[in-house]
Amino acid sequence: MDKLKKKIVEAGEIREGQVLKVDSFLNHQLDVELLYEIGEEIYNLFKDRKITKILTIEVSGIAIAVMAAMYFKVPVVFAKKTESLNLDSDVYKGKVVSYTKNKEYNIMISKKYLNQDDRLLIIDDFLAEGNAMKSLINLAHESGASVEGIGIAIEKGFQNGGKYLRNMNFNLKSLVIIDALKEGSIIFRDEQQRP
Amino acid sequence: MDKLKKKIVEAGEIREGQVLKVDSFLNHQLDVELLYEIGEEIYNLFKDRKITKILTIEVSGIAIAVMAAMYFKVPVVFAKKTESLNLDSDVYKGKVVSYTKNKEYNIMISKKYLNQDDRLLIIDDFLAEGNAMKSLINLAHESGASVEGIGIAIEKGFQNGGKYLRNMNFNLKSLVIIDALKEGSIIFRDEQQRP
Repeated sequence: MDKLKKKIVEAGEIREGQVLKVDSFLNHQLDVELLYEIGEEIYNLFKDRKITKILTIEVSGIAIAVMAAMYFKVPVVFAKKTESLNLDSDVYKGKVVSYTKNKEYNIMISKKYLNQDDRLLIIDDFLAEGNAMKSLINLAHESGASVEGIGIAIEKGFQNGGKYLRNMNFNLKSLVIIDALKEGSIIFRDEQQRP
Repeated sequence: MDKLKKKIVEAGEIREGQVLKVDSFLNHQLDVELLYEIGEEIYNLFKDRKITKILTIEVSGIAIAVMAAMYFKVPVVFAKKTESLNLDSDVYKGKVVSYTKNKEYNIMISKKYLNQDDRLLIIDDFLAEGNAMKSLINLAHESGASVEGIGIAIEKGFQNGGKYLRNMNFNLKSLVIIDALKEGSIIFRDEQQRP
């Protein structure tokens, strides 16, 4: 998605440890016009999959998920991050190890909002090692729902999440894949080379 | 806003301690069509205020803020909740006491995303005691920005936030004001009596 690439080049900041900071349009300030186009692009990629619900995870996935949901005309469910597992019993729950933040957290989804008739599109802003995504997929499968697609705004192609999910035959599409991040240079994967 | 009232009556759950749970359409699962109409309604209330930016706070304010921002054609900035004050120095930061959750947390906004030329509309899903809102207003004022309006989806009129903010002459509009919450009955404030 050229517009997203352009924005990453113009406004993204590369930090130590191959961290890409996109606070100015995606993770703190939100460029709503761009998010709307991201939503449309995700719709075009998955519109044939009879999606009944969009699943994401708080916080930064929500804005993109809502935009896509306007096109699909389906509800969004966002998994909640929790500090403890002191929750209602009526939830699907999982654990996520975050390497960037060097900590472990729990996620949960109320059982009311996912069921075996759901055909899910999972959306997130970033895919790196894919730990949050794997946990979301587990929760979705626990409910009996099918994962019809995974839509990502920015995939870090030099980390393992994308490779893992494609090897597992998930229908993963990323609007932008970054193959390398170095000071002053961001290498994008060519559209034609994209899986 | 009749549609929101109707949804609250149909799908809201009243819990002990005058808690209104709206997880099925606003705080966990999101009814995107309703959120879109909430965004439009907020736009109609504040469209004359030359808004340059919408300010909200993670998590549940984001979806509504994004919807309103599509109408205003301005960016959204969401304040981040943080466990500690171990942050970049380049942030506005404040403290919020949450009575419902019985804990204190910090919020922060990068100084890059608010400035003295901004004319802000602050949006949130709920207004009760108004502690998060007061802290957001302080951060906005610290940046030199003006608070041109405060748009709330659901105000708990039996708590003190609304009264306090109106006494301070903030331009506060709530789409729905609830005057009492009892098991099996929700008393809404009449539109005509609304300030």
